Amino acid sequence: MPDILHRVGIGVPPERVYAALTTLDGLSHWWVVGVTGDTSVGDAINFGFCDMQVVEAVPNELVHWRCTGGQDEWVGTEILFRLVWKNGQTFVIFKHANWKEPVEFMHHCSTKWATFLLSLRDWLERNEGRPAPYDVKIHVGD
Amino acid sequence: MPDILHRVGIGVPPERVYAALTTLDGLSHWWVVGVTGDTSVGDAINFGFCDMQVVEAVPNELVHWRCTGGQDEWVGTEILFRLVWKNGQTFVIFKHANWKEPVEFMHHCSTKWATFLLSLRDWLERNEGRPAPYDVKIHVGD
Repeated sequence: MPDILHRVGIGVPPERVYAALTTLDGLSHWWVVGVTGDTSVGDAINFGFCDMQVVEAVPNELVHWRCTGGQDEWVGTEILFRLVWKNGQTFVIFKHANWKEPVEFMHHCSTKWATFLLSLRDWLERNEGRPAPYDVKIHVGD
Repeated sequence: MPDILHRVGIGVPPERVYAALTTLDGLSHWWVVGVTGDTSVGDAINFGFCDMQVVEAVPNELVHWRCTGGQDEWVGTEILFRLVWKNGQTFVIFKHANWKEPVEFMHHCSTKWATFLLSLRDWLERNEGRPAPYDVKIHVGD
């Protein structure tokens, strides 16, 4: 099954990246404004257009979600953020896995994830996140 | 085999996007400054760090390259740009296919391709491309 893969390097310690992935306040600064729910393992985070259950969270190393609500193509997919400190930065090695088919919407989401991971980087490095609805647009009418 | 997938929508006609993908001048405005070679089908384009043979070029619809030189992970991979006019914009449906393994470098390239496709969009819509070496950086020291 096809996966969306990405990697960005962020010039802050893994602890700060991990916090941005595991707190409502952190998530609202780079992905979606107004996130609700609970970021504990087993609980669900509500991003408005989707719900993510937290499957696993290893401090400063890994965050793993499963999509439990939202668009059909997303439900059942898994999102993993692996954090690796190397060369003075935290690399975020990202995978959005278990898509059923490489539909056109998957192409769209892949590009969109890149912009959100750079939003995460820009928030942590320069306090300039671009969470939805202030996200980088990738097509006319996005 | 895993593929890199992306999609951007560009508010210009397919003719202009096709020209940006099939002329040395066009390619140098969004991907790599100083491109050389020949963009005819069967010929090779030299991007400095890689060579792409033009496999197929269907005016305003499709551009297909095969990597014939460069980093080991890239040689033999195929790059396809499919152009579709819809909702007042040209959608570029992108695939970088035939990677042997989903290595960490593939994650890096996926994010990088997103920034270059947005560079293509920004060049065509606003005359603001970011070709290498002026490309958007995605890690410290990129």
